[in-house]
Amino acid sequence: MIELERSSAVSLVDQIACALLGLIERGELLDGARLPSVRQMAKKLSVSPFTIITAYDKLVARNSLVARHGSGYFVVQQPRLSVLAEIEGTQGDPSEAVGFSRLSLDNCSTSINAGSGFLPHQWLGDVVPPTLVSKVARIQCALVVPAAAQGLAELRRQLAERLQARDIAAVAGQIVTTLGASNAFDLILGTLLQRGDAVVVEDPSYAVLFSQLEAHGLRLVSIPRLADGPDLDALERAVKLHRPKLFFTQTLMQNPTGTSTSASKCHKLLLMAERLDFRIVEDDVLGDLAAEGVTRLAALDELRRVLYVGSFTKLLSPALRVGYIALPRELVDVVVGRKILSLLGTPSFTERLVGEVLSSGRYRRHLLQVRSRLLRFRQRAHALLQGAGVAIDRPVSEGLFIWGRLPGVLDSSALIKKALGEGVLLAKGSMFSPTGSYADHLRFNAAHCCDARLADFLREAAAPAHRNAVGPMIRSAVQPLGDA
Amino acid sequence: MIELERSSAVSLVDQIACALLGLIERGELLDGARLPSVRQMAKKLSVSPFTIITAYDKLVARNSLVARHGSGYFVVQQPRLSVLAEIEGTQGDPSEAVGFSRLSLDNCSTSINAGSGFLPHQWLGDVVPPTLVSKVARIQCALVVPAAAQGLAELRRQLAERLQARDIAAVAGQIVTTLGASNAFDLILGTLLQRGDAVVVEDPSYAVLFSQLEAHGLRLVSIPRLADGPDLDALERAVKLHRPKLFFTQTLMQNPTGTSTSASKCHKLLLMAERLDFRIVEDDVLGDLAAEGVTRLAALDELRRVLYVGSFTKLLSPALRVGYIALPRELVDVVVGRKILSLLGTPSFTERLVGEVLSSGRYRRHLLQVRSRLLRFRQRAHALLQGAGVAIDRPVSEGLFIWGRLPGVLDSSALIKKALGEGVLLAKGSMFSPTGSYADHLRFNAAHCCDARLADFLREAAAPAHRNAVGPMIRSAVQPLGDA
Repeated sequence: MIELERSSAVSLVDQIACALLGLIERGELLDGARLPSVRQMAKKLSVSPFTIITAYDKLVARNSLVARHGSGYFVVQQPRLSVLAEIEGTQGDPSEAVGFSRLSLDNCSTSINAGSGFLPHQWLGDVVPPTLVSKVARIQCALVVPAAAQGLAELRRQLAERLQARDIAAVAGQIVTTLGASNAFDLILGTLLQRGDAVVVEDPSYAVLFSQLEAHGLRLVSIPRLADGPDLDALERAVKLHRPKLFFTQTLMQNPTGTSTSASKCHKLLLMAERLDFRIVEDDVLGDLAAEGVTRLAALDELRRVLYVGSFTKLLSPALRVGYIALPRELVDVVVGRKILSLLGTPSFTERLVGEVLSSGRYRRHLLQVRSRLLRFRQRAHALLQGAGVAIDRPVSEGLFIWGRLPGVLDSSALIKKALGEGVLLAKGSMFSPTGSYADHLRFNAAHCCDARLADFLREAAAPAHRNAVGPMIRSAVQPLGDA
Repeated sequence: MIELERSSAVSLVDQIACALLGLIERGELLDGARLPSVRQMAKKLSVSPFTIITAYDKLVARNSLVARHGSGYFVVQQPRLSVLAEIEGTQGDPSEAVGFSRLSLDNCSTSINAGSGFLPHQWLGDVVPPTLVSKVARIQCALVVPAAAQGLAELRRQLAERLQARDIAAVAGQIVTTLGASNAFDLILGTLLQRGDAVVVEDPSYAVLFSQLEAHGLRLVSIPRLADGPDLDALERAVKLHRPKLFFTQTLMQNPTGTSTSASKCHKLLLMAERLDFRIVEDDVLGDLAAEGVTRLAALDELRRVLYVGSFTKLLSPALRVGYIALPRELVDVVVGRKILSLLGTPSFTERLVGEVLSSGRYRRHLLQVRSRLLRFRQRAHALLQGAGVAIDRPVSEGLFIWGRLPGVLDSSALIKKALGEGVLLAKGSMFSPTGSYADHLRFNAAHCCDARLADFLREAAAPAHRNAVGPMIRSAVQPLGDA
């Protein structure tokens, strides 16, 4: 019922509490159900009774369990998911960016988030510990003073230092905080462009961006993403033809292909931007996973033509939603003006929390851990997916994403719906393509793909003739996966 | 140097620490300066030495002071405001909505926030105490799990209950959380309207909204706001002429006039909306201050034509920025889709904090206190402003705002710049007028206007001949103001 990762930095107590909460929220543990006794549970999971008591008590503290003296722990009545689903109405199409985002944020609906863009909650469990939150909450006025419209000054100073450490010459006054990268794109599009302007994106690339471009009434022009970055010949033709003002690219560990742009291509791209006069938005939301010394556009360019977008949503916490833009000085005021019209401002408290995580050294240690874990998980996920018949496009060794396809599956829409019915979230390849290509592809998240149930599901999907013989995969036996 | 409010719910320790922090941040206490000894300070403020030690130690904990054994407490070197201002670049025009918003969020630049839209920090000091934050931070996964795109389900359920208690028949599935009211308006405008559509607003009304309408390429049509609500005859003519899709109105304690719409006018307005087929956005950001039993459009209409916007930014905390829209069911999915494209989602942690403040009963108690304080402050502010020569438009007895003008001052732009130079934030009347009327008016915030320095400044401004004789007012002696 519960899988533990013994070598995780997340305590066993927290892993157990989190897992039980998931079972309760998904209705797999019903209202009033009695939990196994502390002794039974301890034996079953091979942990000490004290660990179980502490985990149970955490759930008592949040009113998910009630302890009845002498008779054990019982599940407290929860609003039922089925009722919730009825209230919440439709959730949209899981093969399309907005519907998929809605699903992947709604963490109750699936149990194997193979297509998710986020890290598993367990991986983030301890990076913002309650003690740190308490410390920040005790800072005088931290809970009542708003951030400046540009973003909390203390955080922007820290971000500037971090950027300078990677040779991006930004000062605090050039940084505008946002609610994450998507919000940064929305602010940039609303500021720098007029309706009808052309914008160039890579094919494939970040799915939500295409809908954002459409919502802003912009003309979307796409060029292929190659193994070493954007196709520069195609870009040059597109720029000469469409005269775009902006080109969006993710230099490092691109979503969804996992590829990074080579240093020489970065240089050539900037020369072209100078020669043909367009600006570049460099999406670096996974850049904190990159090795030291990698080349970024913003470092070469010194923030003259490049707007650099970073985020702590993916690698630190999607519960806080803190991101930022580092941008040319002359654009700061107009972006801040747009931020005021869209949000008035961002919450100062979440920005203070991120600042404290950065200055405490916790984020640095957390990244080291995430990196080494991801390396191990990628290898296993590769093996597992290939064993299940997935043809992986490119042999990328870093980052979050694996980009591949199931031979024999020409359009994965039906597969994705079926998967959802069995609690598996898959990300359809065509969602990442502005031209609707890659309908046979899927984006996998390495951190979510080391689960034998996923392999079972995909193997069955690739051989549909056997489907009825195998039955719903989600209920099949699960082999525990350590972190070794 | 420091004014204490003895009857405040904010502890003397916190009042002292907050005040000292303000002096440090504004550069009135310089780097390295030695603070008065504990004994001197205790005597000066008529509090116990223990209170002073505790306040000083709070500032030591946040690195604003350093304690040197045997020699006292010293101000730690801070980034200087002048340096910051240089880094931050221009701040825009204080007589215009975006520039004004930027100024009023940047809480370092002024010391008398007479024109602010926010409550003083001291009034909010204890509504989200560190212990409550710690409790929420200890909830399993609270710091790593994102909110559903529609908003945290637990908070939406609480909001639905609160709305039902004021006869607004909303369920959780009809509520979408936002970053505050301005963000709610941005989402509504981006969802329900096409470029070129007409939208009707009141004159005067919320300043930021006009710029939002412009940014969305909408046609702004205005009608007068009267003492008992919108001018319905003018509205009917405007609707017949321009066929708007939306009418924005603030039923209770309107910004900036402070007036509320009568129940009969609410009824007539809804009949007109039905007859002439337009929707209404009801801004209720101050509604939590209203008496029980007041009439709201959303209650009469049952959320069929009315989109109801609430916020906790004004009355609970601008550091958290949590607001919401309660809206007709058929609009929920499209607004959530727009929220995804603009923000992806709102932070779950701040929404959890607000949920906990609501369920703890703290917010209810806080509101009682704010209401009674505001009543007292309004009376005093009225007297003070009238004594300084301000002609107050309407005898409103509730809410945050006082709307008036300085006879003899035809355009307050110069006055506002001069005020800013002396640390006084004033809100120009014409900012709240889509037609640019009310250039002679100012919006005052009752909670910020019980300060003799403000009266001095205004008196001098109304009689410019004496200006040079009086000198810069901000440095003049200050008479302490209790809360009695």
